[in-house]
Amino acid sequence: MKSFSKEEIKALDKIVRLNLINSVSGYKSANLIGTKGEKGENLALFSSVVHLGASPALLGFIMRPASVPRNTLTNMKLTKKFTINSVSEEIIEKSHFTSANFDEGVSEFEVCKLTPEYMENFEAPFLKESKLKMAMNLEQIIPIELNDTMLIVGSIETIYVEDQALETSGQIDLNLLNTVAISGLNRYHQVKQIANFPYARVSDLPKFN
Amino acid sequence: MKSFSKEEIKALDKIVRLNLINSVSGYKSANLIGTKGEKGENLALFSSVVHLGASPALLGFIMRPASVPRNTLTNMKLTKKFTINSVSEEIIEKSHFTSANFDEGVSEFEVCKLTPEYMENFEAPFLKESKLKMAMNLEQIIPIELNDTMLIVGSIETIYVEDQALETSGQIDLNLLNTVAISGLNRYHQVKQIANFPYARVSDLPKFN
Repeated sequence: MKSFSKEEIKALDKIVRLNLINSVSGYKSANLIGTKGEKGENLALFSSVVHLGASPALLGFIMRPASVPRNTLTNMKLTKKFTINSVSEEIIEKSHFTSANFDEGVSEFEVCKLTPEYMENFEAPFLKESKLKMAMNLEQIIPIELNDTMLIVGSIETIYVEDQALETSGQIDLNLLNTVAISGLNRYHQVKQIANFPYARVSDLPKFN
Repeated sequence: MKSFSKEEIKALDKIVRLNLINSVSGYKSANLIGTKGEKGENLALFSSVVHLGASPALLGFIMRPASVPRNTLTNMKLTKKFTINSVSEEIIEKSHFTSANFDEGVSEFEVCKLTPEYMENFEAPFLKESKLKMAMNLEQIIPIELNDTMLIVGSIETIYVEDQALETSGQIDLNLLNTVAISGLNRYHQVKQIANFPYARVSDLPKFN
């Protein structure tokens, strides 16, 4: 096995370190976050959306330091609303390029040819092309002081999902939606189910070799 | 599209709600966290490990409420050390069953037939079967008061990865390691790269239709 100590990681070329550290956590979710503010609509790709709890239904994501203008953050603070839109295979390239550093006032929807959609009077724009999307209320911004990032906590206001992917168990079949996974900074992956185990109970433990 | 309002989500059967809300964030990483404490070794599956930053190299994960005994948390608080071990296809069933509610003092390594491994005097056990593993220092436990969960923040002390998966760019080829992704509470997926886009620059924006 190849190993990297803390000191070796620190001494790596910056891009190599970014690639390495961004890939060690495993596969990541791919979601576009939609907001609207004084300078118009904004759509930004995040690979850090994470489940926080089911009751109340809460999701979180990590926001990088606020040292440069972050439209998503500014808009969320203003309106307390945002949308989370899952990324499927059909739109990976457009989604990826929403992360380019566009000039102020430029809408990623427009330059990346993605379609804003407004539903049920919710203030933030959804992504029309997305097959699983959520209206979110900003609940809390928790600072992570160690590296000046933030955990953004949002509660789910509404879930929209294509009918055929919703199972009676409540589970959404992400394979059917062609939802992708991300690794590192710029790799996109197709995903295929290989196992579905029952809830893990001591009494049902399989006989392992 | 099928939709669920906040009120409808609240009114769902508990298991249906768990399945639904655990699947809306997209694909999740699959990692086993190893710790050691006064009652022995512990190995627990987490699907919430997330990248926090590359410099310093920080990862986080979500821990559920401390209202029931959580050996992983107790051990981490005691030793300030833990390991993160990626889950590959070969060990998905064993990994899944580490989440059963075993009696105090029972080691998941032993009952799930997984092998603890100690490296370079690090206090917490690694998973021998894992192809990508990290020695972690506990840096901070950040409470998420809204639902009584916690964001556990750890810094990477050492990374170990199988040689053939490490690219010169620093990126780890997770496909080559057969690393899996999780969806919902109990679904495991094989992952296959379909695209690798360059760093997104305004000047290199493709012509989208």
